[in-house]
Amino acid sequence: MFDPTTHPHRRHDPLSDQWILVSPHRAKRPWLGQIDEPLAEPQVTHDPDCYLCPGNARVTGEVNPAYRGPHVFANDFPALMADGVGAVDAATSDPLFRADVAQGECRVICFSEDHGKTLPDLNAAEMAALIATWRAQTAELGERWTYVQLFENKGAMMGCSNPHPHGQIWASNFVPSVIATESRTQADWLERHGSLMLLDLAEREAALAERVVVANAGWLAIVPWWAQWPFETLILPRQPAARFVDLSDAAAGQLGSLLSELTARYDNLFGCSFPYSMGWHGAPRGQGAAQGWQLHAHIYPPLLRSASVRKFMVGYEMLAEAQRDLTPEQAAGRLRAVSAERAMRR
Amino acid sequence: MFDPTTHPHRRHDPLSDQWILVSPHRAKRPWLGQIDEPLAEPQVTHDPDCYLCPGNARVTGEVNPAYRGPHVFANDFPALMADGVGAVDAATSDPLFRADVAQGECRVICFSEDHGKTLPDLNAAEMAALIATWRAQTAELGERWTYVQLFENKGAMMGCSNPHPHGQIWASNFVPSVIATESRTQADWLERHGSLMLLDLAEREAALAERVVVANAGWLAIVPWWAQWPFETLILPRQPAARFVDLSDAAAGQLGSLLSELTARYDNLFGCSFPYSMGWHGAPRGQGAAQGWQLHAHIYPPLLRSASVRKFMVGYEMLAEAQRDLTPEQAAGRLRAVSAERAMRR
Ligand SMILES: O=P(O)(O)O[C@H]1O[C@H](CO)[C@@H](O)[C@H](O)[C@H]1O
Ligand SMILES: O=P(O)(O)O[C@H]1O[C@H](CO)[C@@H](O)[C@H](O)[C@H]1O
Repeated sequence: MFDPTTHPHRRHDPLSDQWILVSPHRAKRPWLGQIDEPLAEPQVTHDPDCYLCPGNARVTGEVNPAYRGPHVFANDFPALMADGVGAVDAATSDPLFRADVAQGECRVICFSEDHGKTLPDLNAAEMAALIATWRAQTAELGERWTYVQLFENKGAMMGCSNPHPHGQIWASNFVPSVIATESRTQADWLERHGSLMLLDLAEREAALAERVVVANAGWLAIVPWWAQWPFETLILPRQPAARFVDLSDAAAGQLGSLLSELTARYDNLFGCSFPYSMGWHGAPRGQGAAQGWQLHAHIYPPLLRSASVRKFMVGYEMLAEAQRDLTPEQAAGRLRAVSAERAMRR
Repeated sequence: MFDPTTHPHRRHDPLSDQWILVSPHRAKRPWLGQIDEPLAEPQVTHDPDCYLCPGNARVTGEVNPAYRGPHVFANDFPALMADGVGAVDAATSDPLFRADVAQGECRVICFSEDHGKTLPDLNAAEMAALIATWRAQTAELGERWTYVQLFENKGAMMGCSNPHPHGQIWASNFVPSVIATESRTQADWLERHGSLMLLDLAEREAALAERVVVANAGWLAIVPWWAQWPFETLILPRQPAARFVDLSDAAAGQLGSLLSELTARYDNLFGCSFPYSMGWHGAPRGQGAAQGWQLHAHIYPPLLRSASVRKFMVGYEMLAEAQRDLTPEQAAGRLRAVSAERAMRR
């Protein structure tokens, strides 16, 4: 008899159209590899050496205003620039050496003036202000650019260079690879089933319950059937919304409490400030580009066994196929089993 | 005028059919993030605590033989098992929750009895013995299994739990996601151009020279036009060969010297034992499955600026599109500029 918690199997991700190898018995092997330092908790509300704190100078010499609440500014080292130099020259069509121009804008969003806060520490009003900023930024940049990617890298383990709570926005004149695939799979689903893939999923998952971590009237956070990272989650609205701007005010409000609870559960899982990369996917610009699209967020946290032992996506994962060591249902169960209240951190 | 070393642009990878964002000006930003410990060089030829050294006991209690040269044994914590339990039950066709059985075999290959050696330390005879083992293992497992993945994770940064020189083999009853894509893109190329994509590429790159790191009569190591990792390389045979078994003895011999030189250059780049994940891609089992296929190896090394500062593939990269901070041509130039001789390490 097949037992998904014992027998290796593969699961299909209909959004990325990829298979994932699930090897749940592997969780039993002893860990002899790298032990990371758990994230040091910032103890201060203002760090004089932080280039994101209000009133401090950045690398460029520019001085941050005395902001309170979310604060957005242009990235000092943008990966994308609005400048059109080389727009024509860059495009090559040699099938072995294809290239194209990349233009865009990169911004930083400080979530709070408080250096020591993280998402679960924000109160309801602060969280609402952040979500309003996400909406306004994606709306503004989405008028000029083909695609707007909102994301947060949290923790040194995830390449974050500064613990001050912040995220980034990279807007581009192109549809990035991952988004192009999600456009194709969602449009195909609409064509085949006459419905939105991720709205169908939200309904099914809410009913099944076993992969749900947090649910409220407007939103669902699940460990998806096809999760790659041990405690990966997918955040889904329960009403149609192709982009942030399509959310009702009620839905935007409900998102805040869902995010607070989800990130508090994450912190409580291993008793640490939980590292992750989180990002929002919405439809690219244009009516046609929204075909089948439903707004959603992916959260990819690296931790596997404790605050200091992570999953490495290396070797087989990079070269052949993503592989996970516990089932998504087990992961969801563990996240449901810990407290939904943030622990007092100072 | 477009200058690829200054202006952001995108490049297309015809093998994975994905775009990569190149932001070469980003290499100028100061690094404020995580500093990894450089790999400690093992000082001993035999470590009594190593579960891979000859004569030592493994976690299971089994004792390793007093081997010399390459030694292969079954992985004690295999991600895949030959056991067919659940073969029928596992398969679901619900389009939101598709699953399938996964069966296979996982093995470990010790490259040498010497705990302190790495690939560039092997002499020509030792390297030839390792390549012969790769050929024999892929041939043997390739008769029973649909696909055989050979790989090496090197360095704690790449999730490797033991510095004893070793790699792994995961053979499966399925074609993994990455390989399925490479089968499609190579078969399409054959159909469209009547030639092998990667053989065409080897010819073009050998002539252009700017992305070549090492070349000999049988092989080429290049930083591909579409490299994601800073110093990623692609190893290509210069004659048709869909799988390891198709290599002539001459080609197998020439591979050893290419690998020795390439890995020595890697070590010399930042003066450390260079971490990476390396793996071989060959055609899946069966005549039809080899359509358009050319054997090749990918090497994915994480280091970016020094022995302790790595590239993080997080946030934008996970959610939208791979991004790199120096051009592939710059990376190849830097690897050509360092010595091809391994430094004496003890
Ligand atoms: O098998 P190992 O060396 O214990 O484990 C390492 O390689 C595996 C295959 O790439 C990965 O799944 C693990 O995350 C990694 O730590
Ligand atoms: O922009 P940051 O925070 O300096 O850099 C971080 O996020 C970027 C976007 O995901 C990545 O390209 C970098 O590798 C990572 O270190």
